[in-house]
Amino acid sequence: MVLERVKQLAQQVSNTLAPPHPLDPLSTTEIEAAVSILRSQHGKLYYNAVTILEPPKAQMLKWLADPDHTQKPNRIADIVVISTDGKVFDGHVDLTQGKVIKWEETPNVQPLITMEDLQIVEHVVRKDPGVIEQCRLSGIPANEMDKVYCDPWTIGYDERFGNAVRLQQALMYYRPHVDDSQYSFPLDFCPIYDSNKQKIIHIDVPKVRRPLSRAPPNNYHVKSVEDGGGFRTDLKPINITQPEGVSFTMKGRTIEWQNWSIHIGFNYREGIVLNNIGFFDKAEGVVRPIFYRLSLTEMVVPYGNPEHPHQRKHAFDLGEYGGGYMTNSLSLGCDCKGSIHYLDFDFVNRAGAASTIKNAVCIHEEDNGILFKHSDFRDDSVIVTRARKLIISHIFTAANYEYCVYWIFHQDGTIQLEIKLTGILNTYAMNPGEDTKGWGTEVYPGVNAHNHQHLFCLRVDPSVDGQKNTVFQVDAARGAGEVGSPENPYGNAFYAKKTKYTTAGQARAGYDGNTSRTWDISNESKLHPYSKRPATYKLVSREVPDLLPKEGSLVWKRAGFARHAVHVTKYSDDQIHPAGRHVPQTSGEPSQGLPLWIDANPAENIENEDIVLWHTFGLTHFPAPEDFPVMPAEPMSLLLRPRNFFLRNPALDVPPSYARTPSQVAAGKTGCSSCVDKTSVQV
Amino acid sequence: MVLERVKQLAQQVSNTLAPPHPLDPLSTTEIEAAVSILRSQHGKLYYNAVTILEPPKAQMLKWLADPDHTQKPNRIADIVVISTDGKVFDGHVDLTQGKVIKWEETPNVQPLITMEDLQIVEHVVRKDPGVIEQCRLSGIPANEMDKVYCDPWTIGYDERFGNAVRLQQALMYYRPHVDDSQYSFPLDFCPIYDSNKQKIIHIDVPKVRRPLSRAPPNNYHVKSVEDGGGFRTDLKPINITQPEGVSFTMKGRTIEWQNWSIHIGFNYREGIVLNNIGFFDKAEGVVRPIFYRLSLTEMVVPYGNPEHPHQRKHAFDLGEYGGGYMTNSLSLGCDCKGSIHYLDFDFVNRAGAASTIKNAVCIHEEDNGILFKHSDFRDDSVIVTRARKLIISHIFTAANYEYCVYWIFHQDGTIQLEIKLTGILNTYAMNPGEDTKGWGTEVYPGVNAHNHQHLFCLRVDPSVDGQKNTVFQVDAARGAGEVGSPENPYGNAFYAKKTKYTTAGQARAGYDGNTSRTWDISNESKLHPYSKRPATYKLVSREVPDLLPKEGSLVWKRAGFARHAVHVTKYSDDQIHPAGRHVPQTSGEPSQGLPLWIDANPAENIENEDIVLWHTFGLTHFPAPEDFPVMPAEPMSLLLRPRNFFLRNPALDVPPSYARTPSQVAAGKTGCSSCVDKTSVQV
Repeated sequence: MVLERVKQLAQQVSNTLAPPHPLDPLSTTEIEAAVSILRSQHGKLYYNAVTILEPPKAQMLKWLADPDHTQKPNRIADIVVISTDGKVFDGHVDLTQGKVIKWEETPNVQPLITMEDLQIVEHVVRKDPGVIEQCRLSGIPANEMDKVYCDPWTIGYDERFGNAVRLQQALMYYRPHVDDSQYSFPLDFCPIYDSNKQKIIHIDVPKVRRPLSRAPPNNYHVKSVEDGGGFRTDLKPINITQPEGVSFTMKGRTIEWQNWSIHIGFNYREGIVLNNIGFFDKAEGVVRPIFYRLSLTEMVVPYGNPEHPHQRKHAFDLGEYGGGYMTNSLSLGCDCKGSIHYLDFDFVNRAGAASTIKNAVCIHEEDNGILFKHSDFRDDSVIVTRARKLIISHIFTAANYEYCVYWIFHQDGTIQLEIKLTGILNTYAMNPGEDTKGWGTEVYPGVNAHNHQHLFCLRVDPSVDGQKNTVFQVDAARGAGEVGSPENPYGNAFYAKKTKYTTAGQARAGYDGNTSRTWDISNESKLHPYSKRPATYKLVSREVPDLLPKEGSLVWKRAGFARHAVHVTKYSDDQIHPAGRHVPQTSGEPSQGLPLWIDANPAENIENEDIVLWHTFGLTHFPAPEDFPVMPAEPMSLLLRPRNFFLRNPALDVPPSYARTPSQVAAGKTGCSSCVDKTSVQV
Repeated sequence: MVLERVKQLAQQVSNTLAPPHPLDPLSTTEIEAAVSILRSQHGKLYYNAVTILEPPKAQMLKWLADPDHTQKPNRIADIVVISTDGKVFDGHVDLTQGKVIKWEETPNVQPLITMEDLQIVEHVVRKDPGVIEQCRLSGIPANEMDKVYCDPWTIGYDERFGNAVRLQQALMYYRPHVDDSQYSFPLDFCPIYDSNKQKIIHIDVPKVRRPLSRAPPNNYHVKSVEDGGGFRTDLKPINITQPEGVSFTMKGRTIEWQNWSIHIGFNYREGIVLNNIGFFDKAEGVVRPIFYRLSLTEMVVPYGNPEHPHQRKHAFDLGEYGGGYMTNSLSLGCDCKGSIHYLDFDFVNRAGAASTIKNAVCIHEEDNGILFKHSDFRDDSVIVTRARKLIISHIFTAANYEYCVYWIFHQDGTIQLEIKLTGILNTYAMNPGEDTKGWGTEVYPGVNAHNHQHLFCLRVDPSVDGQKNTVFQVDAARGAGEVGSPENPYGNAFYAKKTKYTTAGQARAGYDGNTSRTWDISNESKLHPYSKRPATYKLVSREVPDLLPKEGSLVWKRAGFARHAVHVTKYSDDQIHPAGRHVPQTSGEPSQGLPLWIDANPAENIENEDIVLWHTFGLTHFPAPEDFPVMPAEPMSLLLRPRNFFLRNPALDVPPSYARTPSQVAAGKTGCSSCVDKTSVQV
């Protein structure tokens, strides 16, 4: 019977859907098929993840090169489950064959905490006698426990508990009214929650107690603004319309726009994954590969208050919660404005049912100001061409914080990753007159917002004109020879000093703002016909703080990827997660992910190889009252730019807004009459 | 008779115009009045500049505090002229009184090169026998001299000629056809032009000759694109409209928008000058001053090729040519898109007539994505509010290059300065197979684009809640104590390390990308009621390369402002130009401007004083073929952000796009129905 049903489902997968691209996320049907197959063999399980196992790169490249004559890679589900007795299993279900091809118990790990895992803690906390007692001590009577809230976080790692038991720490808050912002009323104690037992097993209570603040609520909701003087009325609408439609086309999940071609994947951890990024090069008449895969693959948010238990606050939001799972369902005209195309995201819930986040990914175009301009001072001949950009974005909410991730494609071949941070500061209680000691800021009476960093790890799997690439560190450097020397008589010589990375062990590098350090990802066998330099995409990233937790600290051990601005490794199909596959409750001994891989073979060749560049960047945030009670979005941006890749500016054929040559000026002609913009007005 | 005419004109100034704000640029009538007064006393003069002399700050502040009961500062024209026999005079003409109040000959200086000064050189060059001979040697017959062009630059400083003679260097090019881009055909020699004699006095000829390239033209004009396959046809229009009008109001040249109030000045050197920047703080019920004056006040573009005479290529585009003089007249829907308000710029020409650049300044609003967002993972309650920005911009063309300057005001109190670099690379000739030695890039056959830096000096005259401010250098720093120590048991402690600048001599600092260095401009007598920290605007700037020409080099000597990322000086009315008032042909011995002022009194107190912060930032540009034949705009941005200035997020009263509280969710209500956007569509 069960087998019958499985076969039916497998049939359904192949029959009812347009055949998926091998890198497409699993559909609800596929998720249900995988669950059904597992259920038939293993009974009841708690599902942590059912996601596409991307085919091995070698297999994918073969298929991509000749899809009509190559066997399509099988659809395989990558599975993480927790058994009813708390054991963790990793498995693979081949959906094409309809069978389990891998099934392993993985001891001493904890898979990420899902939204469902989070949701349950608050209910338990409110009923726990120890928590009720701590609330009473804080000034909250037992009959107000419905006003007590918690943001459950992974525990990070606490040496007292290790990783055998699945734990969460509950950051506690109070709401005078259900609509009040709880972050103005943090509580000072921290219950530890056992996910398997579904109970509180410990409460961390600080030596110095900080009772509930009696400050008035500090809200940002509509009523609070209306009561406080009302909304401003002088903001006139801006309408953005595309009456002739958008300039991109979707074929399945592959988008084509302005010579770009990109497959848009999505998974529960990284959120958006971009694959097979290529650019149709008019000069060469082909789509040239640039990146095999781009994603934000990990992040860590260490907090800087040294007092126990704040060291546990260093969320790996992607590896410990999942940037995909936490993704918002987006609203038209609110999150994105204009003509919007959405993609949904299908995922598994704890019970094994397929669920969907509608409008998880927003795709739209924006005007981007001037693309290029030149005017000749002699005669007013001029060209001015406006730029357009394509934005593929999602927003995820990690408890208090919002991360808005924008993958932006430009007509000149540049890829930009912009992240906007908004949402609400993580807050902790403080007593009136208490000294923050510089570890935080009193952003509101009784509210201490601790210093923190947001460190993101961008995984760049390049294919710059092919899989064999090399990374160079590039520093602006002064020429040799002092002022007056024969080789540098005027002292003005400077050049781009390039350091080739040849081994994974060598390729661990910090940032240097003074030399405007960048990194070239080059194909050394493809030299530019003019410059004779290798075809390159350059990483230009300027928000690259040091990891501030010290060497040997818990965060340093757990977040190995954040020790350096750049790591380069040889490509391996199983190396996606630079802090490890299962991140919660890793001790960092040994450090999972990147340090482990590199230390296994520091002499591994990465020159002219299939490589991956891992780039850690981000912000150090010293909070201020302006960031509260909800934070104005703080943007941050990095670029991947073509250098010696295109024969020349690849955007010259974008229709100009205005153009007039010297001879047209001389003849009194108005030049190009194809102004694309008929709707601007002078006021 | 003449006196009569002068009186008439003075009368005209006071009668026919709406009384100008004391900081308004001079009108055409005022310029003509000033010229007329001078002409009556001094006869024929060549006018270099007639611009508003901004009133002394003390006088301005008095008037601003109580304009109804304070005498309005007189309108005074600040004048630079060159006499018919080549002498330079600086003067002041009081237009209110109708008389000359200062008139001084200034020896051994050269005022900036105007557009008219530039225009004439090409004509002279084409007829010069020496140039004709060099062209012949380069492969251009004498009958093709009409195809020879030159970009005249100031000579910078050449020790062979000093500064007694007014000189320009002519960077030489060839155009096969009048519409071809000359930058693909650079010539290898460099004539020196004497502006007073209007003749070529010398030609620098390199030891290694590089004849005219015979490569085909490399163009970007419409016909060349049409001939090369045509324009792309898949770009659909984006319309941006404000059917209810714009959200700003202009009172004279003072703009009010979203609580901001800003006077928009403009002069021939700096271009846009922003004064009296304040923000209406709802919480305090007053307009709080933030900056008395903001401008880009100088820049230098050193080139990195050590061979003579390329060391002379280090243009001070503002001080040597004038960012105002070189400003483009902007076109609707091309340079700016949407609902645009323009301001014109009136200036004097060489003969003393008033002239106007129409649409010199563009003012418009743009949607700016998400201003803030938070959603509660418990219940889908949410707020999302979209941002708007106000942009005040101008674009100037410095021979080959375009600089687009955008002063951007945000609703959260942030001021952003964005600069886009576009236009065309400065190019030099190279022989087939010649080695660039790393000092440049062969961007097209025979075309060597030299390495260069764009270093801008932002002059920040702060008035953060008053004139007495202090600057702190802020570095992200690790806490004391190793991992395991009592004060830092987990090694995660970090804080904002603040270094107070107390004297001008001390306040010369570099950038540090690793500590994410920022600078706080604080009012130490205005502490935030919550954080107890001083009201502050923070300078956040991440594109801050070292000045690459070495200490003691010509550029280092002449561009003293670029030696450090930040200087702080005590305010002085006459300290506007950090490389000196007259920049061309300064030797740098001694260094003019900032170094001179600071060295005069390095112990000058700058703590809790009326101060000026000078910030040098920019880009180091190693050219690539993608930048040619016209360069896709390269953006660069810095922020001035309120910290501990506002009681809380000052943008909470911006109407949300969507909002729903937990109680509304529970009651099945849709929350705020005031979605501002009705025009977005799903595609």
